[in-house]
Amino acid sequence: MYYYKLKRQSVTTTYDPTSRTTPTRYRERASYDRDVVHRILDEALICHLGYVNDGRPVVLPTTHARCGETLYLHGSTGSRPMLSAHAALPVCVTATLVDGLVLARSALHHSLVYRSVVVLGDARLVDDPEEKLRALGCLLDHVAAGRADDCRAPNPRELAMTAVLALDLVEVSAKVRSGGPADEPEDLELPHWAGVVPLSVTAGNPVPADDLDPAVPVPPYLAAYSR
Amino acid sequence: MYYYKLKRQSVTTTYDPTSRTTPTRYRERASYDRDVVHRILDEALICHLGYVNDGRPVVLPTTHARCGETLYLHGSTGSRPMLSAHAALPVCVTATLVDGLVLARSALHHSLVYRSVVVLGDARLVDDPEEKLRALGCLLDHVAAGRADDCRAPNPRELAMTAVLALDLVEVSAKVRSGGPADEPEDLELPHWAGVVPLSVTAGNPVPADDLDPAVPVPPYLAAYSR
Repeated sequence: MYYYKLKRQSVTTTYDPTSRTTPTRYRERASYDRDVVHRILDEALICHLGYVNDGRPVVLPTTHARCGETLYLHGSTGSRPMLSAHAALPVCVTATLVDGLVLARSALHHSLVYRSVVVLGDARLVDDPEEKLRALGCLLDHVAAGRADDCRAPNPRELAMTAVLALDLVEVSAKVRSGGPADEPEDLELPHWAGVVPLSVTAGNPVPADDLDPAVPVPPYLAAYSR
Repeated sequence: MYYYKLKRQSVTTTYDPTSRTTPTRYRERASYDRDVVHRILDEALICHLGYVNDGRPVVLPTTHARCGETLYLHGSTGSRPMLSAHAALPVCVTATLVDGLVLARSALHHSLVYRSVVVLGDARLVDDPEEKLRALGCLLDHVAAGRADDCRAPNPRELAMTAVLALDLVEVSAKVRSGGPADEPEDLELPHWAGVVPLSVTAGNPVPADDLDPAVPVPPYLAAYSR
């Protein structure tokens, strides 16, 4: 309990907004709350990594994992962003959860119920073998909590094939849009249905690999999988 | 039938790969097939739009719509990418569908079942009022097929508030990863469960807006919503 208090005191509860993390519109949707940001990053299975290549943008989907105030990404040492990251790599990492469709009477007021996080910064390649192993464990546990301890750890050859990027959570913002449509007063009597269609990600029954020994049970963290 | 044949002859069935759309690894996962690309773009509710601002990458989630071989995006005329697009705006638009988790015996071989599309190019602001209206209709129908004709169309003031970007589908690739884990032969007897956990997006029951007249029925395209 004392440790918990100490930890909480060591960081502020919010990220400091910057000009780049201050939206030009819908400012009320922006949040810099660490808990809000952490929950979105932890729930989102994947993110989209943006970087600049020859002056042009590139956006690739990838998994991520938050470990405290650091976001980890990984890839093959031969992949383009990893090759570019030998110095610090300017990146934008965006994670988005879509929770529903917002149907309004007017075309303009259609929207989505969503939660997103944008992280800006310079990613660094993780060199320290211990941090790298820890980050890879976080990446596995992000996909399925408990998996890092329930598989064969990477051997030195596999570790050398894998590059890990670390991005400190410093310039960060969340955007959250909730609730139903906000139609114009003069549109309320129009005959069009208005409201929200909720969306969620659901997991089906685990499908064993063809070569799996049928005696190996489905672990609990997969049998009741949800995000 | 004759028209259909004519149309099919007018375009090739694949996009031409470029150095930027040729992956450095897992080349067997890449596809340039127009049908594959179209299906992914049409099924994905949102995409992530990447552009460069002051030399640094920015990645924002947004909805999109494909209309033939053109991808449309929209936003407020005051939003950053729209303000930047008065000349052609170099963009990367990436849409990703995650269909499952791939659990392997070894940490390294964990993966996802996914389908993604990357579109590179210079987006242009749509000036022509007819194309703009048509694009906004496509964007609504992309979210829920049939909605464009079942809501109040934008008035001139609303049209002026909305910017539409068009991106021709020229430099395009899909990446598709399907199937179960590919473990090393020496790992097959390890006691860890291996296989796929399927994931899908499901829609809940539509929730009417608080101010909706209860006599307005849920339209069929929302009652049985799926992507």
